[in-house]
Amino acid sequence: MSVDESRKITIAAIARLAGVSVPTVSRVINGRSDVSPQTRERVEELLTRHGYRRRPASMRTSSGLLDLVFNDLDSPWAVEIIRGVEDVAHAAGIGTVVSAIHRRTSAAKQWLDNMRARATEGVIFVNSMAEPPLQAELRRLNIPLVIVDPAGVPPQEAPTIGAANWAGGLRATEYLIGLGHRRIGFIAGPPRLMCSRARLDGYRTAMQAAGLPVDDSLIYQGDFYHESGYAGGSLLLEHAAPPTAIFASSDQMALGVYEAVRRRGLRVADDVSVVGFDDLPEVRWSSPPLTTVRQPLAEMGMLAARTVLRLAQREKIESPRVELATELVVRDSTAPPRS
Amino acid sequence: MSVDESRKITIAAIARLAGVSVPTVSRVINGRSDVSPQTRERVEELLTRHGYRRRPASMRTSSGLLDLVFNDLDSPWAVEIIRGVEDVAHAAGIGTVVSAIHRRTSAAKQWLDNMRARATEGVIFVNSMAEPPLQAELRRLNIPLVIVDPAGVPPQEAPTIGAANWAGGLRATEYLIGLGHRRIGFIAGPPRLMCSRARLDGYRTAMQAAGLPVDDSLIYQGDFYHESGYAGGSLLLEHAAPPTAIFASSDQMALGVYEAVRRRGLRVADDVSVVGFDDLPEVRWSSPPLTTVRQPLAEMGMLAARTVLRLAQREKIESPRVELATELVVRDSTAPPRS
Repeated sequence: MSVDESRKITIAAIARLAGVSVPTVSRVINGRSDVSPQTRERVEELLTRHGYRRRPASMRTSSGLLDLVFNDLDSPWAVEIIRGVEDVAHAAGIGTVVSAIHRRTSAAKQWLDNMRARATEGVIFVNSMAEPPLQAELRRLNIPLVIVDPAGVPPQEAPTIGAANWAGGLRATEYLIGLGHRRIGFIAGPPRLMCSRARLDGYRTAMQAAGLPVDDSLIYQGDFYHESGYAGGSLLLEHAAPPTAIFASSDQMALGVYEAVRRRGLRVADDVSVVGFDDLPEVRWSSPPLTTVRQPLAEMGMLAARTVLRLAQREKIESPRVELATELVVRDSTAPPRS
Repeated sequence: MSVDESRKITIAAIARLAGVSVPTVSRVINGRSDVSPQTRERVEELLTRHGYRRRPASMRTSSGLLDLVFNDLDSPWAVEIIRGVEDVAHAAGIGTVVSAIHRRTSAAKQWLDNMRARATEGVIFVNSMAEPPLQAELRRLNIPLVIVDPAGVPPQEAPTIGAANWAGGLRATEYLIGLGHRRIGFIAGPPRLMCSRARLDGYRTAMQAAGLPVDDSLIYQGDFYHESGYAGGSLLLEHAAPPTAIFASSDQMALGVYEAVRRRGLRVADDVSVVGFDDLPEVRWSSPPLTTVRQPLAEMGMLAARTVLRLAQREKIESPRVELATELVVRDSTAPPRS
């Protein structure tokens, strides 16, 4: 549909039909929050019925801002993603608005109201379910959306940027097998997250490819946080036939395994090999430094910013789903098993 | 000077005197970047000479934004401060624009240009020298500035928010003395930072108050980063009469000391007590969990946001310098010295 054709119905006509003023229709079109829900709904319905199309994003005046939305600002990896996004946005003369919506609908609504009042070039959601109503609202406002490391099945509309979780899970497990380990424990992340499932599947596939049994009693269900690594590590170490290596699918859980090992008077690497996933800056300095699968968090943030700015320019994105490579970083927490 | 009196000279008159258009004068007054430096300077000079005063901040239209500016987004504590600022700003319906200026004048200028183009309620600098030209420019634009944990001598104009560094240094040293330690090493932060000097002075004062000698060969000059903690810890452990406890004035340096202890086949707490400063989230999970001085980073961010929003409302701030309390958090890295 060309722009001319799509704008056949005028704002004035919509205002007449809705029984409201022209500025009120404009406010609805521009997504302003100072319109009653009833009026908004009536005007929206008329706009849709008469095929009124908003101006394309490239014709909007530049807001000079993009929005980076986290569920919670409680993880050390958040700063890595912020750093990547800010780097690209800064170079483009765009400010990065960082928000946390705490998985609360009220906070998400408040963010949406704030954002509407000042406009934005585009929105990046990090590890968020990006609830359908929120996504629909962004589409309605013609605001581009990119999702980093999506938690659920990615929606068709929004491009997503993740890491090669499956390949990372595979590579780390292959490495442990190569060192001579046969009984390898795995501590999984929340099953509702795609990235958790991909890492676990990489582990399973590597075990099977090496002709090793996948023993479900060596797989512990964690939640990516430290405590579950400690709990899972403790349980695995008290197994009747304990593993000689434990692959925790987040760095925080791997540091929890460290504590479980230490509390039993055992030593990481010498007695039990431990591998993590993420490569947070601080695991270089853990005792011993952690062997882990590096997720390129800053690079994921950079790509998300570039993608959302390209969408704001109405550029076409080649692939709706990009996975950046993960990389095994070998440090001192892994060794051949005691013979 | 009342508002009426201060605005006696009109924009039109300034435009005539400068030989430019009225919109150009407006652009200078509003701090827009699309004016040549020569024109800006000429107009500014005339505005100053004729005593033209900008409208007070409360009369500006709300931008719905505040700016949080870091030197670098490379530290895990950055996310703590962002969390605090975002929490208060979000509740006030304000978006938090996070930037990093990398101690580069060019990046600071770029940030200033971006910020001018979209306006802001106020600016928070974190641990930044807040160079005088930048501060002067913000004053000129009538934009409130608050500084968190200032690096140098705080300027008179901007309110600053810090932590009770001296009291924290004192308290941690007293605690080690109370455990029975007599030879206590200290790893200092960069001497250009006030917070470094305050922590060191707290250590000295506690030693002197207990009648213990302050041995300069037990004080190592670090830079707050991990490597300098490792280097300082290594040097202190190889001292002819090594200390039985080491107080590192940042958590990252304390984890470096852990590594120095481990590399020598020694054990933290059993052989050498270690204390840090910051209480980053991850030191709860270090092996062993670190005894440290907690800086209330999120609370400092919250107070900074509240202060800058009050200044934007032209409220009077009671104190130009606020220090939030630090607190000793005792975990497992400290024990009485081996007898």
